[in-house]
Amino acid sequence: MMILRSAPASPFGRKAKIAADLLGLHDAIEVVFADTNDPNDSLPTQNPLGKIPVLILDDGSKLYDSRVIVEYLDALAGGGRLIPSASAARWRVLSAAALADGMNDAALLIIYEKRFRPAELWSQAWMERQAQKITRALAVFAAAPPAGIRDISHIGLACALGYLDLRFAGAWRGEYPALVAWLDAFAADVPAFEATRLKD
Amino acid sequence: MMILRSAPASPFGRKAKIAADLLGLHDAIEVVFADTNDPNDSLPTQNPLGKIPVLILDDGSKLYDSRVIVEYLDALAGGGRLIPSASAARWRVLSAAALADGMNDAALLIIYEKRFRPAELWSQAWMERQAQKITRALAVFAAAPPAGIRDISHIGLACALGYLDLRFAGAWRGEYPALVAWLDAFAADVPAFEATRLKD
Repeated sequence: MMILRSAPASPFGRKAKIAADLLGLHDAIEVVFADTNDPNDSLPTQNPLGKIPVLILDDGSKLYDSRVIVEYLDALAGGGRLIPSASAARWRVLSAAALADGMNDAALLIIYEKRFRPAELWSQAWMERQAQKITRALAVFAAAPPAGIRDISHIGLACALGYLDLRFAGAWRGEYPALVAWLDAFAADVPAFEATRLKD
Repeated sequence: MMILRSAPASPFGRKAKIAADLLGLHDAIEVVFADTNDPNDSLPTQNPLGKIPVLILDDGSKLYDSRVIVEYLDALAGGGRLIPSASAARWRVLSAAALADGMNDAALLIIYEKRFRPAELWSQAWMERQAQKITRALAVFAAAPPAGIRDISHIGLACALGYLDLRFAGAWRGEYPALVAWLDAFAADVPAFEATRLKD
């Protein structure tokens, strides 16, 4: 049984969970909560960066980050299912997935601003800088949402939008109706999305 | 001719440059400076995240981030040269490369703390949190530095150590002599490392 260190509010952990479900590997993985803010959690011994998710294999190997985990699970399920094996599609999909991950990185930095420092040290300029990255990415995805067979870029975008819903009350929804429709279709098609709805 | 948007101080851009050189693709890429702080730079139209590096292909496709770029270049050169094609080695190497990337992410957040906000908004606790990630990663790499054929994890670690040298005057060197020796050997073996020495 593989172990996935994750947390219910993690958009990156959710990627791994949805990938596992789509690949029929749900029952091969036990999710074990990791508290990234608990100094006594074993997480830093599993990933020195102290980040989730980490996938611990039967032989004790630790795989991270979420991109590596999803690709590993894809290979375990035969390969080429969530990440095209070759051709131009692979690089297009991986770049789109990196863009979605970058939205999460930026959103997390906004959240961390208020989580890890007192109000008198908040920088509106820094948070605005991160918000602009998210806004530009949303515009690009809205103009051309991931299409075709569900792949890692679909999973990544769905998890990024889900994180914006969790943390910013879905403020993106009014601006990008095309993405609202896209996410509704994804959720209808991929039951694991609702099953992994983010929560604190 | 492919175009690489990068900057001389970017550890992630350096990864792409070293990979291209090791793969014999140096002459297939023109490096075009990107100023991540210039609102008039076209970078955000190439990567909505406003991050470097971005690789622009002849057909106009934009590939990012550095991990995707290195894998693309590796495939272009035949595949399996800088990233093992399959087997347990692939996941070990990719996880180590992710760890090295995470060192850079943490180091950049420390630098950004002082670049993007005035001194009265600096948080020592935030910078210490990032520094701890770097310290834990250094300890893990020092205990078992990447061995064998030069791969993406070697390139990533070398670029992470090089970035620590640039930004923190090589303070890591006193603590981790095994990594100093490792980096010396890497530099002796890979001329592109010195040729891409980071500078502002």
